[in-house]
Amino acid sequence: MTGTTGLEVAGLLSSKARRAGSGTFGAPRSAEGRISLLGGFPDPLSLPREEILESVRLALERDGVWALEYGATRGYEFLVEQLLVKLRRDQGITARPEQVLVTTGASQALGLLVDALCDPGDVVLSEQPTWMGAVRIFRAAGVEVRPVPVGAEGIELDALAETLEALTAEGRRPKFLYLIPTFQNPTGVTMPLAARRRLLDLAYEHQLLVIEDDAYFDLRYQGERVPPLRALDAREHVAYLGTFSKIMAAGMRLGWIVAEPSLIAAVAGVKPEGGTSPFAGAVAAQFCASGALLEHVAELREIYRERRDATLRALSETMPEGAAWTRPEGGFFVWLTLPPGVSAARVAERARERGVDVMPGSACFFHSSGDDTIRLCYSFVTTEQISEGIARLAGVIREEAAD
Amino acid sequence: MTGTTGLEVAGLLSSKARRAGSGTFGAPRSAEGRISLLGGFPDPLSLPREEILESVRLALERDGVWALEYGATRGYEFLVEQLLVKLRRDQGITARPEQVLVTTGASQALGLLVDALCDPGDVVLSEQPTWMGAVRIFRAAGVEVRPVPVGAEGIELDALAETLEALTAEGRRPKFLYLIPTFQNPTGVTMPLAARRRLLDLAYEHQLLVIEDDAYFDLRYQGERVPPLRALDAREHVAYLGTFSKIMAAGMRLGWIVAEPSLIAAVAGVKPEGGTSPFAGAVAAQFCASGALLEHVAELREIYRERRDATLRALSETMPEGAAWTRPEGGFFVWLTLPPGVSAARVAERARERGVDVMPGSACFFHSSGDDTIRLCYSFVTTEQISEGIARLAGVIREEAAD
Repeated sequence: MTGTTGLEVAGLLSSKARRAGSGTFGAPRSAEGRISLLGGFPDPLSLPREEILESVRLALERDGVWALEYGATRGYEFLVEQLLVKLRRDQGITARPEQVLVTTGASQALGLLVDALCDPGDVVLSEQPTWMGAVRIFRAAGVEVRPVPVGAEGIELDALAETLEALTAEGRRPKFLYLIPTFQNPTGVTMPLAARRRLLDLAYEHQLLVIEDDAYFDLRYQGERVPPLRALDAREHVAYLGTFSKIMAAGMRLGWIVAEPSLIAAVAGVKPEGGTSPFAGAVAAQFCASGALLEHVAELREIYRERRDATLRALSETMPEGAAWTRPEGGFFVWLTLPPGVSAARVAERARERGVDVMPGSACFFHSSGDDTIRLCYSFVTTEQISEGIARLAGVIREEAAD
Repeated sequence: MTGTTGLEVAGLLSSKARRAGSGTFGAPRSAEGRISLLGGFPDPLSLPREEILESVRLALERDGVWALEYGATRGYEFLVEQLLVKLRRDQGITARPEQVLVTTGASQALGLLVDALCDPGDVVLSEQPTWMGAVRIFRAAGVEVRPVPVGAEGIELDALAETLEALTAEGRRPKFLYLIPTFQNPTGVTMPLAARRRLLDLAYEHQLLVIEDDAYFDLRYQGERVPPLRALDAREHVAYLGTFSKIMAAGMRLGWIVAEPSLIAAVAGVKPEGGTSPFAGAVAAQFCASGALLEHVAELREIYRERRDATLRALSETMPEGAAWTRPEGGFFVWLTLPPGVSAARVAERARERGVDVMPGSACFFHSSGDDTIRLCYSFVTTEQISEGIARLAGVIREEAAD
């Protein structure tokens, strides 16, 4: 650097960059040596390294040129094929290749959909609380979010119906409804079948596009599977998002959208990099085709079931009167509501001082609220760490409640 | 599908999606069995499969957890380290980690920069002709492009100075200037050192951000290296884009931005997926660290030098009077100007019927022009295919010129 003047960047930024602020997507490395109930990071010890190496070997041997060249925008062909098999087998979703787009995780999938659908000022509907990444994506896009509360059976349909009626009365059409109907992030709740059918009826009635984020579907630890909205939707009103992040490896950064072909084409049009990594795609395709995915998911269900059980056990053993929490049948998260008057921001700060990281629930709300809630993620920690971490957290909450 | 009504998607699309149109990024597979002088696809036969497999093995052995988890938005840590080494050694660019962001290829890098810098209606400057991907990205963003012509020494600096003066007189400040100063896509020309210094002086004088796309720098076949603008820039006015696509494997989809830290932070803020594939990043980092990258680049220089030579030889042997072409010292492209009155669109169409694919130059222009030009890419074809392909192309041009 010389002493001369640099460029003043702030004055050059777009409205979107000013709304978005600086990037903050955390790395799990920072959790080493701590008890992290914070980020939705998959279990580090069960990552299928051997199977991934074998999948790379197969991918390079069988299709070593096309796995290493630019690929079609839709995604690596054999991966699309394998996804169609997986979606039919596991999700009960039947799709054709032109309904699929491979993306850099489900997070980019949502970012691209918002880019393809929304101008600043547009109205969108979303569950609340919801995935904090969605909160950030919607903020960056400058859309007006009408939040709909999440109850014990997922999004509250009466509230949704009222919101839709109110928008109709205002003459405004929402671009979409975003929701996570299965093992919701952050609450862990799942919509029952009847609620899903009623939601689709509302969508059909209002010509509403539904973005169904289904990152956790395969990780069910008890109870019966409830079909994804997309599996129940005969009228192409649902854009379905999935990901390999929780069931193979987040580091592959591979997700997908299943949607109406013209919407897929529009999303592809705003994706500047063309096809998502053919290399990672070829590896994931072999991972599916060899049966490694199914085996790995079965193993993960055992691991995460124990952790969920340890979480619920620790909560009932240690939490003070007035605290309440959800009892998810799958996924990564338990949603904790604090005793009246206790601030989650303060609890999180004091827990951090004691080596325990948790996420204040307010990050999952669109306007400042939710300070009586905390998201607990049990995926990244051992059962021992869970017991210890929740005991420490409960200690902090008791102290705060006593103040 | 039932007979019921689907969702009308067209009415839901954003302004950006409507400007962008459907995705069209082609896959090289479609070139099999043809002579493709079309896309900038790397040579398929020299792809370093063994070295990549070995890099995967090393990456999983040495850092198998963090290569497979979500990573920092900046990019996989060891890759950032290796990039800093590579940039200093090969490009003469000194950078710190906070000046680097790993992206899904240089194409996403440009897309994100535009997202972070531009609102619709903003003015940007660009070389013309330029990379057709940039034409599409700028169109999708809805920016007003002021094109500056490319001559034998790259962007024409007098024209650039005039454009800058004109904008100042209009009271408008351009968000950036986009250019490819080395082995330009599509013309193959390289800016000499003196021109680079004058360009930087103009940038300093006008507080102009320069986006330098440098995908081909390492692929020089003759002549002396000219430092990238970023290596000459002591005042952080240059955002530098690079990629592994041409020197390792396009299928990794790994590129990078080197820029002022606050610009990097802003770009990270509009990148919804967080960090680009830690898995691919870990593999690329090992590929760099082991010395495989340097060896592979040396091999590629030999391969592409022969192809460039074959291209120039075939052109001088077969092209009719009135055709002209550039003589690049590196990169993938020769730019062909047709004899007066011959249409590139028509030539491309008739060549296609004879099994030869070329890109009409008009795709590299912002407004309909350039129909007397064709981009020839020699990276994906053997020297035999080059001779045969250019002979057939010359035949078509002769026939068209005679009409």
